[in-house]
Amino acid sequence: MFKRKNNVILPPAKIGIIGGGQLGKMLAFEAKRMGYTVIILDPTQNCPAGQVADKQIVGSLHDSNEIRKLAELTDVVTYEFEFVNADVLCELESEGYKIYPSGSTLKKIQNKYIQKSVFSSAGLPVPRFTKINHIEDIEEGIKDFGFPLVLKHCTGGYDGKGNIVIKDKKDIENVKNDLLLEKYEMMIEEFVAFDRELSIVVARSFDGKITYFPVAENTHEDSILKLTKVPAKISDQVEYKIKDIAQKVLEVFDDIGIFCIEIFLTANGEVYINEVAPRPHNSAHYTIEACITSQFEQQLRAITGMPLGSTKLMSPAVMVNVLGKQPIYGEYSVKGVGRILEEEGVYLHFYGKQFVDVKKKIGHITVLDDSLEKAEEKSIIALENLLIEPIKEEI
Amino acid sequence: MFKRKNNVILPPAKIGIIGGGQLGKMLAFEAKRMGYTVIILDPTQNCPAGQVADKQIVGSLHDSNEIRKLAELTDVVTYEFEFVNADVLCELESEGYKIYPSGSTLKKIQNKYIQKSVFSSAGLPVPRFTKINHIEDIEEGIKDFGFPLVLKHCTGGYDGKGNIVIKDKKDIENVKNDLLLEKYEMMIEEFVAFDRELSIVVARSFDGKITYFPVAENTHEDSILKLTKVPAKISDQVEYKIKDIAQKVLEVFDDIGIFCIEIFLTANGEVYINEVAPRPHNSAHYTIEACITSQFEQQLRAITGMPLGSTKLMSPAVMVNVLGKQPIYGEYSVKGVGRILEEEGVYLHFYGKQFVDVKKKIGHITVLDDSLEKAEEKSIIALENLLIEPIKEEI
Repeated sequence: MFKRKNNVILPPAKIGIIGGGQLGKMLAFEAKRMGYTVIILDPTQNCPAGQVADKQIVGSLHDSNEIRKLAELTDVVTYEFEFVNADVLCELESEGYKIYPSGSTLKKIQNKYIQKSVFSSAGLPVPRFTKINHIEDIEEGIKDFGFPLVLKHCTGGYDGKGNIVIKDKKDIENVKNDLLLEKYEMMIEEFVAFDRELSIVVARSFDGKITYFPVAENTHEDSILKLTKVPAKISDQVEYKIKDIAQKVLEVFDDIGIFCIEIFLTANGEVYINEVAPRPHNSAHYTIEACITSQFEQQLRAITGMPLGSTKLMSPAVMVNVLGKQPIYGEYSVKGVGRILEEEGVYLHFYGKQFVDVKKKIGHITVLDDSLEKAEEKSIIALENLLIEPIKEEI
Repeated sequence: MFKRKNNVILPPAKIGIIGGGQLGKMLAFEAKRMGYTVIILDPTQNCPAGQVADKQIVGSLHDSNEIRKLAELTDVVTYEFEFVNADVLCELESEGYKIYPSGSTLKKIQNKYIQKSVFSSAGLPVPRFTKINHIEDIEEGIKDFGFPLVLKHCTGGYDGKGNIVIKDKKDIENVKNDLLLEKYEMMIEEFVAFDRELSIVVARSFDGKITYFPVAENTHEDSILKLTKVPAKISDQVEYKIKDIAQKVLEVFDDIGIFCIEIFLTANGEVYINEVAPRPHNSAHYTIEACITSQFEQQLRAITGMPLGSTKLMSPAVMVNVLGKQPIYGEYSVKGVGRILEEEGVYLHFYGKQFVDVKKKIGHITVLDDSLEKAEEKSIIALENLLIEPIKEEI
């Protein structure tokens, strides 16, 4: 469905989503509620989003033919995962297909070196960084940034994958032979001794309007998001700085859609952009229950040309991720749910993933409570009560 | 999946829903969010609930083989529509399948004469009523109840279908030849000169615990729900009476699941049960956004043996139904959405029905606002802005 004259995409128009994980599933929920038709592209048959969509194209997120097929079948295309074939998106856009955020924005974000360079050029605060072409460049970096520093793959990393913290010269020796600089593009970055990790999800609509969800405070474990608290306990000044950065990031991209900006906050109140994602974010799942508009409805509103919704927080909220503790390759059962649901304001989200692996995100729990401390306590107890077990056939 | 020893049904167990309309769709949303597997039985391929479920059995809601198939494929069965084959449900229960509410409760509810008799025997306030076996019985009824009175089909009516208000003797003459008393079971009922129409949705869990959603105030037009306001502006005394009735209704049935009790409130504060439905209800759609737990999550909790959730109202709410204004037998588009979404706290629900008909429910809009008056105003403006139009192919 090609070259609509009008920018507004009305129900029951077809929303194409590249990637069929939990983010795609939660977007599909909102789209289906509002009467849209949803088509998912994902290589895994019966993926989480595929389970609730009208249709799934089973195909690779990198295959230009499959992505083209999705665009041809739908009125607008978005993605829930940034490692998709961005060149095809650019090509399709040039033919008039609607894709938000655009392929060119995605390309800038996919490569962390380019992403940081874009922000740095715009005067936005990022940790100091440099490209590594030769192993000697690391030595140069040490002179400039000192220890520790972070060695990063420029492309393909998420949840901390592809990042290595280098604490001393010995660490360099240890990784030196594994770098394969002729094969992988790599960079080093100054290590920001952050006090807290924050994030903000922002949306930009066709008419350039921007909305800001509340700033969230995140706790990571092994680089994977563990817990999000909202509202973050930050000063007005820090909040202002973060919103200002968010606005400038969106202006740099001059694009449409939803973005998450991950922020490092240092003890003396300095803020740095850690990373930007051009999609809804794990740290804003709390918006589903806690805000007037969820981040997924906001994404839908942005890409369909609707006015953006209110981001007002209706209740303090804590979100905890449910991560796999052991690999389970067959069916698994979620035990302890009864105990968890005894508490008021506890919301269960299980994604329907086909297998469990160590630290794999298989669900999340959001808790609303007038007291943030109480919400956190409930969320921890909920996690403790949860038991993910393989289903053994009854004899 | 038959005769589980334990009453608790854990994700990803299979939830069977008889009927695939909007109520089934909204239940499926909650079940999919919580990680359950959802199978729908409905005769219409690609029905609203089928669009978001894991699987749909395309088959009649009355066909015992299809219902048996659904029960065999799932861990628990419920229904979103009361006119299904209740005998099969009873049979399946006797074989150990879990079906909530039970077939025997459903049978009592399906026949309005039996339903009213059950309540009347339990001392619950219902309008006076009597069975019509001969046309002369109407004359008797007039002597007892006076004019106007309501002539009702005992089975099969909903949204006012099958009900005729008899205002005078002439009206009796007019309908006399169409009654087909040898074919249809009929009753007459005293007409309650109600001041307002209210409803309450209540749930009962395995352990006999009951939760009460807030009392809602409803406006009907041509016997179809038009608008629901919550909280209803009623005295504590009336609220107490209604909750007391609700509790007794649930105790009469001694069953598990969710029930809606429609209430007539007279100008002098008397309350009468109008009708009871053994399922989620249009007048509690507001719970999705306005309550801690939605009526659909509550239904799911009840039938899976989970503790019931908090029914706390988080905001005043108004819900308006979107009804078809003209028949549309092809694809249709929902226009005016952009204008509607400009207002804060407005939630769109379109069911994805395959065709539109006059007064057919195709969606609803819920508005949250600190002021109930403001919410009502916004809901009316939203409806006025909405335009459902056939999609004409672009040339």
